[in-house]
Amino acid sequence: MLSETRTQQVMGAIRRKITGRILQPSERLPSIRGLAATMNVSPSTVAEAYDRLTAEGLIYARRGAGFYVAQTAQPFDVTEVEPRLNREIDPFWVTRQSLDAEPHMAKPGCGWLPPDWMPLEELRRALRRVARADDALLVDYGSTRGSFALRRFLAGQFADEGLTTGPDDILLTASGTQAIDLICRLLLRPGDTVVVDDPCYFNFQALLRAHQVELVSVSFTKKGPDLERFEQVLKQYRPTLYITNSALHNPTGASLTPPVAHKLLKLAATHNLIVIEDDIFAAFESEPSVRLAVLDGLENVIRIGSFSKTLSASVRCGYIAAKKEWVEALIDLQVATNFGGPSPVTAELIYSVLSTGGYRRHMYGLRERLAQQRRVSAKKLEELGITPWLMPQGGFYLWCELPDGMDSADLARRALDGDVVLAPGNVFSVSQTMAGFMRFNVGQMSHPETLAPLHTFLRDAG
Amino acid sequence: MLSETRTQQVMGAIRRKITGRILQPSERLPSIRGLAATMNVSPSTVAEAYDRLTAEGLIYARRGAGFYVAQTAQPFDVTEVEPRLNREIDPFWVTRQSLDAEPHMAKPGCGWLPPDWMPLEELRRALRRVARADDALLVDYGSTRGSFALRRFLAGQFADEGLTTGPDDILLTASGTQAIDLICRLLLRPGDTVVVDDPCYFNFQALLRAHQVELVSVSFTKKGPDLERFEQVLKQYRPTLYITNSALHNPTGASLTPPVAHKLLKLAATHNLIVIEDDIFAAFESEPSVRLAVLDGLENVIRIGSFSKTLSASVRCGYIAAKKEWVEALIDLQVATNFGGPSPVTAELIYSVLSTGGYRRHMYGLRERLAQQRRVSAKKLEELGITPWLMPQGGFYLWCELPDGMDSADLARRALDGDVVLAPGNVFSVSQTMAGFMRFNVGQMSHPETLAPLHTFLRDAG
Repeated sequence: MLSETRTQQVMGAIRRKITGRILQPSERLPSIRGLAATMNVSPSTVAEAYDRLTAEGLIYARRGAGFYVAQTAQPFDVTEVEPRLNREIDPFWVTRQSLDAEPHMAKPGCGWLPPDWMPLEELRRALRRVARADDALLVDYGSTRGSFALRRFLAGQFADEGLTTGPDDILLTASGTQAIDLICRLLLRPGDTVVVDDPCYFNFQALLRAHQVELVSVSFTKKGPDLERFEQVLKQYRPTLYITNSALHNPTGASLTPPVAHKLLKLAATHNLIVIEDDIFAAFESEPSVRLAVLDGLENVIRIGSFSKTLSASVRCGYIAAKKEWVEALIDLQVATNFGGPSPVTAELIYSVLSTGGYRRHMYGLRERLAQQRRVSAKKLEELGITPWLMPQGGFYLWCELPDGMDSADLARRALDGDVVLAPGNVFSVSQTMAGFMRFNVGQMSHPETLAPLHTFLRDAG
Repeated sequence: MLSETRTQQVMGAIRRKITGRILQPSERLPSIRGLAATMNVSPSTVAEAYDRLTAEGLIYARRGAGFYVAQTAQPFDVTEVEPRLNREIDPFWVTRQSLDAEPHMAKPGCGWLPPDWMPLEELRRALRRVARADDALLVDYGSTRGSFALRRFLAGQFADEGLTTGPDDILLTASGTQAIDLICRLLLRPGDTVVVDDPCYFNFQALLRAHQVELVSVSFTKKGPDLERFEQVLKQYRPTLYITNSALHNPTGASLTPPVAHKLLKLAATHNLIVIEDDIFAAFESEPSVRLAVLDGLENVIRIGSFSKTLSASVRCGYIAAKKEWVEALIDLQVATNFGGPSPVTAELIYSVLSTGGYRRHMYGLRERLAQQRRVSAKKLEELGITPWLMPQGGFYLWCELPDGMDSADLARRALDGDVVLAPGNVFSVSQTMAGFMRFNVGQMSHPETLAPLHTFLRDAG
């Protein structure tokens, strides 16, 4: 609930000071009267809060001497932030709903394609091939950068785009998300400011909460971030980092235009802003759009990606392409926190699929199939009064406006009662200004029954 | 080099303040005279340091106004700590040497068995089986806790030991190291104190550096940690966490005795110490030794493990068994930083191997073969004047004393020139008191040629 009782507010404030170690174990808490004055509540409110925290074991009372922080370590609760979000628009809750959803549930709000859209035959063939691989590949730890063959393959692809990197400028990681996490561990300190798009992929927000940084968002237009606002933000907040997808932005589907990319990079250089460009949807474009990493040449831009959307989310592998000194530092961090590079069998499976003609043909067919499915889904949604904000050039998302006055969190809640998982606009929005929007995954909307409940919800909600 | 010039000391001090954000971007540095007085060096030393840092772009001068921190983000250098260790005993360098060693190099210092000791046939069979698995398993993201089948299997094994957990008290992770890293993210803040054994697994030290905590070590005896010292440390430093292996301790091979385990847990409870018990070598014991998690029932103990030493380091998967509220918090952290649980294909491969009779027979044979190899290797080492500190009940390590006066870091350096990777005692020792010790991996010592160079080195060094 967005509104808490005063007692809960006091409890929350004390809890946060304890988990943040502002109040240390065995340290004396503020007096009841003192805290009441500071927080502008009645002493009885503070007294009740202290009693309830004592019952939870977080603090204890010493006769005649006040309250003290209990000695037990307080775990870092990454989900505990202000303001508390309704769960339908809380990145953590939405993620767990999608990932832990029962197979029978329809998931037009989720962020991946159903199995029949993925290169299954190529994967099965790769597994059989790896079953015949050398002994060492099946059991040894990987090298610290990860599979050379896969890195060389990626370097070759990057070179085709105009980004000259060697295999050693690339580091393989456990996943695309873990790639961003590693970079954040390298470059961020608690209290730093990070810029994201508005709207943006919701798990960026969850990840950045884990790093205890301040988030500032910039509206994403149909051509990329609003540059006037972007420049203001850079001057005012002096952020360390900006995280974005420039090709087929999640959730809007927009792609950066060359003038916007160029101006953005100039601003980044002027203000010493590091940019993480997440390439995870780039392979869905028929015509490649402009890439920040290619224009910049990895001076201020770090490219990350993975194969979870195009190849498999079950055989996970990510990569980072960055300048040399950062790659070395990232290797040290990955070695410390995961001992060695990502699973060699995984990297070999990925490489095995990527380097076949069958996969290239699969992607060609996939792009065609998705283009048609976007058109079909847009039409079905329009019949319900739901209109795409733009028609993307690729990928499986449609970012749509709901009929006037409809709240997407409300719609998402009703849909869940009917076993349908939706993605309401505000889970993507740091500024919480996207209540009238929703992201649809056209690959999860093939069955007529998926939208039927939506029709009912809209009718009931409208 | 352990000794730095005064200029380097000044530069190091400023660098650390900047990477630790004690000095913020654009903040003014101490005046040259002021810092010279504080650090008890001459002003010209500080001036030279400031000039060199300016040349590196870390700081800049404003005419007549002093020096300022440049606005570029300073990456967190996890390897930069005081005192700087010679690389042969630096956990980061030693890890990278082992993981990135060319195949032709002999590695009696590394921490895993060669391929021919691992269950290769079972792995190949599992890959072929998974090649025929359901579509969803091959491409979908995993649930947030990871494969239910594997968790249920583990819960069953734990129950046999007397640890009653359900599958939902277990969380699968990308690796054993990443399991510990996740727990550290949950429970530690920079500046907290963590207790480790002396000696201890060197990557624990690297990992804890990444968390910016203070390390305190307690001597490990042939029965477990020195409890008198342990109690002193708990009272004096009030650490948050203790990380250990109780079954076949790395590197000594000792196993905890029941009285030591019991007393340790009482001390932990009294002093609110959380214990991470790393089970990674437990399967190598023929007779299971006492386990902290079993005695404690996961109240103050968190059990972690993986299959990298017994099954494959290329198909990596770890697990955490902990009390409910911590498991939930760990899931949120793993979701934020790695989006979803570990690779389902990986977990399925592991489960597929673990649940076969072939694997059980393999482990039985492995324990027998290792018992013999420990005896054979101990004999060969004794011929060189190198004597095991104790004969372990299982596993592949021998922790050995070198002949009097010999320095293991020195020996390791010479061996590397001859393409042999060794593990010198001080890389395992926070107190740096193990210069006369070395850890040998008997599985990597089957070939007569491996020890021949050692004979030469010892003769040259002696």
